[in-house]
Amino acid sequence: DPEVQVVYVPLPTSMKREWVLKAAAAKKHVLCEKPLAATGSHDEACAAAGVQFMDNTMFMHHDRTVGMQEVLADTALLGEARHVNSTFTIPFGNDPEWAGSNIRMKGDSEPLGCFGDLGWYNIRLTEVAFNYADPEAVSCQFLQETDEGVPVYGIATMKYPGGRIGRFECSFVHALRQWGEIVGTEASMDFRDFVVTNEKSQASFTVSKSTIGDRAITFPREVVLEKKFGDCVQHTRTIEKMSEIVVSGKLDEFWPKVSLQTQTILGACFTSARQGGAWVNPATE
Amino acid sequence: DPEVQVVYVPLPTSMKREWVLKAAAAKKHVLCEKPLAATGSHDEACAAAGVQFMDNTMFMHHDRTVGMQEVLADTALLGEARHVNSTFTIPFGNDPEWAGSNIRMKGDSEPLGCFGDLGWYNIRLTEVAFNYADPEAVSCQFLQETDEGVPVYGIATMKYPGGRIGRFECSFVHALRQWGEIVGTEASMDFRDFVVTNEKSQASFTVSKSTIGDRAITFPREVVLEKKFGDCVQHTRTIEKMSEIVVSGKLDEFWPKVSLQTQTILGACFTSARQGGAWVNPATE
Repeated sequence: DPEVQVVYVPLPTSMKREWVLKAAAAKKHVLCEKPLAATGSHDEACAAAGVQFMDNTMFMHHDRTVGMQEVLADTALLGEARHVNSTFTIPFGNDPEWAGSNIRMKGDSEPLGCFGDLGWYNIRLTEVAFNYADPEAVSCQFLQETDEGVPVYGIATMKYPGGRIGRFECSFVHALRQWGEIVGTEASMDFRDFVVTNEKSQASFTVSKSTIGDRAITFPREVVLEKKFGDCVQHTRTIEKMSEIVVSGKLDEFWPKVSLQTQTILGACFTSARQGGAWVNPATE
Repeated sequence: DPEVQVVYVPLPTSMKREWVLKAAAAKKHVLCEKPLAATGSHDEACAAAGVQFMDNTMFMHHDRTVGMQEVLADTALLGEARHVNSTFTIPFGNDPEWAGSNIRMKGDSEPLGCFGDLGWYNIRLTEVAFNYADPEAVSCQFLQETDEGVPVYGIATMKYPGGRIGRFECSFVHALRQWGEIVGTEASMDFRDFVVTNEKSQASFTVSKSTIGDRAITFPREVVLEKKFGDCVQHTRTIEKMSEIVVSGKLDEFWPKVSLQTQTILGACFTSARQGGAWVNPATE
């Protein structure tokens, strides 16, 4: 159908590669659900075909993400950003009847389990916070797996140049949480809802600073900045961004590059977990 | 001096054992700063001497801690408590001139570094949340150390029976933060100030629950319970508790027992970190 310019690929991970390749071969631009693949990537197929590849990580397109990067650039407020911590957990696994038939935790459809479905966002937040630096090493532990070896609860630590650290946890067996924090030497930036906003077109983050009070009897905490962002629905913005690129006819190299970085770190998490949490360099995996 | 009934031992860790033993031998009750020792413990000296041993972990005596345990006992709210996450970081290490002479990070006075000074509280929160169960295994990584090998930034994961997990991070090189969260299958309990309260005689915790909204465009978050506790200064309560025991003449076995548990987990963290994060059973260390 020549009317179709963009194909959205929301298929189970195991089926994505086939359809991304078919779409690219047909010269269709690709908006792909995460994770990109069970192993490796396939954004290169899009590059070869001369079409745009973009993953569907919606918070990338929210005004708040731009605001966050502005604060990070201002070291007077946070100090030096050294630590990113985030969590994304959704209790998909707590209804045994439903979980048994849920493709999110089937080895043949979604072998990356909670890491592919949720941890992807944790990794991406860290990439944004550290301005897309490559991590030097990743250590990951699976704390709970299905009988098939699909992780449903796990944690990871990523080492970045200069002693900066990113950490996250993701799981299908805990109450829904989706917070992030970016910690500097002076203050800390907090998000209550970094993946999907609590409200439709309202989002915020706070920067707070705590100190040791008189005789250490209190540790007063002060919110030094609260930034609010209205009139932005990130789902809509994502579609708008993809349309804008397609209409302009000018491909944006940034999107496939950052997709590949996230996918590579995700792969290193799995390699580490299968080695009992050993430090693994994503660049050499 | 026969007028003295209780000795408070706030000395550097390396000097504590000598003075706890002297106090016990002189039949004085002991209120001891944490950690108890660089290796092992010495609460047994107090037991042998027939005096009370108590560590100075003040939040144990706050009304809020009792309120937290009440909520944990009510599974209708949180579901099953499966995960405890906490952080305690104070930027003692970010002023190089001061840090160089700070006993908090000298190998001969405080070899346990940020784990002894701060991580002690993280471990204790986890113990309280999981009702003093013994962890089956501990994995710990030091992310930054002084030249002498004193940790100033580190993370640990504790595995408890039934797949429950406690995690924490502590550091001397990040902005002051002291939050804790106890996560169940249904909802999550949050503390902004679990170690030392932000205000002198006011403390709270919240229990919140998030859900997936219509077409997953929002993840609405609702605070389902906020408990506030006034008129309680935990520093005062600690002294009152110790005085009460001394005046009653009836020793309380709970306090030395929980001190020893915390110290044992702390020791296992060090063993694990020196083995590159391997899982270590605290009971067999």
